[in-house]
Amino acid sequence: MKFAKRLEWCDSSDVGDILKALSDPEILSLAGGLPAPELFPVEEVKTATALVLDREGDKALQYSSAQGDPRLREMVARRMTDKYGTPAKAEEVLITNGSQQALDMAGKVFLEEGSVVLCESPTYLGALGAFRTYGAEFVEVETDSDGMIIEDLERKLKEIDDVRLVYVNPDFQNPTGIDWSVERRKAFAEVVGRYGVAAIEDNPYGELRFEGPCPPSIKSFDRDGVVISLGSFSKIFSPGMRVAWMIAAPEILSKFGDMKQNAILCSSTLHQAQIVAYNEMFDLDAHVERICKVYKKRMSVLIDSVREFFPKEAVVVPPAGGLFAWVELPEGVNARDVFKVAVEEHKVAFVPGGAFFAEPGHENYMRLNFSNVPEDRLKEGIRRLGAVLSQSM
Amino acid sequence: MKFAKRLEWCDSSDVGDILKALSDPEILSLAGGLPAPELFPVEEVKTATALVLDREGDKALQYSSAQGDPRLREMVARRMTDKYGTPAKAEEVLITNGSQQALDMAGKVFLEEGSVVLCESPTYLGALGAFRTYGAEFVEVETDSDGMIIEDLERKLKEIDDVRLVYVNPDFQNPTGIDWSVERRKAFAEVVGRYGVAAIEDNPYGELRFEGPCPPSIKSFDRDGVVISLGSFSKIFSPGMRVAWMIAAPEILSKFGDMKQNAILCSSTLHQAQIVAYNEMFDLDAHVERICKVYKKRMSVLIDSVREFFPKEAVVVPPAGGLFAWVELPEGVNARDVFKVAVEEHKVAFVPGGAFFAEPGHENYMRLNFSNVPEDRLKEGIRRLGAVLSQSM
Repeated sequence: MKFAKRLEWCDSSDVGDILKALSDPEILSLAGGLPAPELFPVEEVKTATALVLDREGDKALQYSSAQGDPRLREMVARRMTDKYGTPAKAEEVLITNGSQQALDMAGKVFLEEGSVVLCESPTYLGALGAFRTYGAEFVEVETDSDGMIIEDLERKLKEIDDVRLVYVNPDFQNPTGIDWSVERRKAFAEVVGRYGVAAIEDNPYGELRFEGPCPPSIKSFDRDGVVISLGSFSKIFSPGMRVAWMIAAPEILSKFGDMKQNAILCSSTLHQAQIVAYNEMFDLDAHVERICKVYKKRMSVLIDSVREFFPKEAVVVPPAGGLFAWVELPEGVNARDVFKVAVEEHKVAFVPGGAFFAEPGHENYMRLNFSNVPEDRLKEGIRRLGAVLSQSM
Repeated sequence: MKFAKRLEWCDSSDVGDILKALSDPEILSLAGGLPAPELFPVEEVKTATALVLDREGDKALQYSSAQGDPRLREMVARRMTDKYGTPAKAEEVLITNGSQQALDMAGKVFLEEGSVVLCESPTYLGALGAFRTYGAEFVEVETDSDGMIIEDLERKLKEIDDVRLVYVNPDFQNPTGIDWSVERRKAFAEVVGRYGVAAIEDNPYGELRFEGPCPPSIKSFDRDGVVISLGSFSKIFSPGMRVAWMIAAPEILSKFGDMKQNAILCSSTLHQAQIVAYNEMFDLDAHVERICKVYKKRMSVLIDSVREFFPKEAVVVPPAGGLFAWVELPEGVNARDVFKVAVEEHKVAFVPGGAFFAEPGHENYMRLNFSNVPEDRLKEGIRRLGAVLSQSM
């Protein structure tokens, strides 16, 4: 049998090794990116499901349009307008099967072998995986605690041929937790618009902001219709339902719609209707507030524990929201080696930071998840990791 | 903005024109491929959902593995072994987001620009769409009422460079309703095995057999591990849940698993658990029997009506199962012209057969759906189509 060349581009060994290590149920894992399951609105979903099946069971179990349930698109458009100042209409919204599907479709719509994607340094692992399937080459743009450095972005847009996409994750980035400043958001939209390059603003964590209102989205500054805004119900409702959305200019959205049709025909009709019904009967914003309260507490415990148990040279900045904290170790310390010892000898896991960089090197970082670990376990996990680090540093 | 070259390969205007015509709610449509919604097990889904949420709500709303719920894979393996003599184990099953996703992933795993896919003549429209996204070129293999003609298949495997896939739909094919003979199934498996070419046996309709047991699958004759068997809950349970499966050799399955991870991370955890719970509490086989009884009656009404109202020159063969009947019109009659008049002047729709052929021509065919149309409406639809045909022929 002859396989496609693209299989050589998709080296999944990084993720595979990590997943394999985590299959041991005794591992105390700070590795995943999972929401806290004890906060899922299980009873409310049961009530909403009964309503949907009583009211529209025959429709809810049937095929539906690739673009998605008009009621859900309306709900998303309203939330995005209110929360982020993204002035969206229902017809500018496409429902996707998790934001990951939007990344896969972006690969289909924009990329072919040798196409360049500019990304933050580091960037989301899953975006690297999705875009590599289509032959993307990545170039990292210099990034600081306010987001991409706009001068470097512009230099790279000017100098590099065939940049097809710029991919960013401006709200509590995965993996670093970085939250872009409003100035950078604005300048970013201006530059990609001026160069006419499509940009993806991937924002699955933005509503998990521990304090204050959400800043305006990059999309809200997009005068040129080049920004594709991704959002998701995974972290604010349920990732198991795989319901997310994208907002983009009609010319772009229709191409994604065609690709969705070819790839999966449609998203789950029932899950879309469940979310619509939940939103009619319950208060999603209040639910998100409850999540934020718990995660904020866990984040504090994590940060305090890191400061208590990690060697002084390890640098961590408390994130203002999201699921992750990012630890910088002294150069020369290889987090992959730390990972091995941690998993094998101390039954504790995290994700070595090197996996999040498009370019090699950068092995002295750790991504720590706090959303899916109760406070006492967080403290214990960090204590164990601290012991490993004290040996390694 | 610069888009990928593949967008030129994916001309969705055929489907787009049809969908557009169907958006008029007054149209009596025999065009779709939808199951009868009045047969959906709505109450049973409600009961099963409550069980799932009570028993495992925190797990059912969480992310899950790309390969799928082990209980569902076990259930599928057992059904496939019992019904089709496909000796599958749970670890050889990958859950997919509808069978359409398996086609998309097959494109990713096997195809690149210029790769050849051999297919029946005609073939499933959605497979053409999925594979074209990856640059496939199609070559039709001669097909008669028993399936692909094996000599022609072998000749094409010998003569054509770079055949990566053979795609077939042997049980009540979409669009023709053709059901492959056991001899052809066996010979097909032997030939693709001998040439070492991957083959997809797409079987979403096989259980909708109006009489007698299912014949052995092509996969049951696969000695060489080249056959990928696709099945789906869409037509026997609910298409709105998007739960389907594939069975393949481990070397192939793991590549599809990686592609699934990159494309959507995982299938709906809740829907997989709902089907598992439904199967514990209710009798899926009895449900399928009920569907078959209704569809068989509708099929008879359709065939009788065609014989009553269509011009004598129109040829239709009653299918032994599935959702569709296929009508051959005299050469020179263009079904796309018939479609226009039918929709605009008589408010009745079908799918013009030309859309199902990989190669141009073949415009003198109609695909008629009977699963989603009550008996009186079927008769009325065929009466109207008969009037259009009498004018056109």
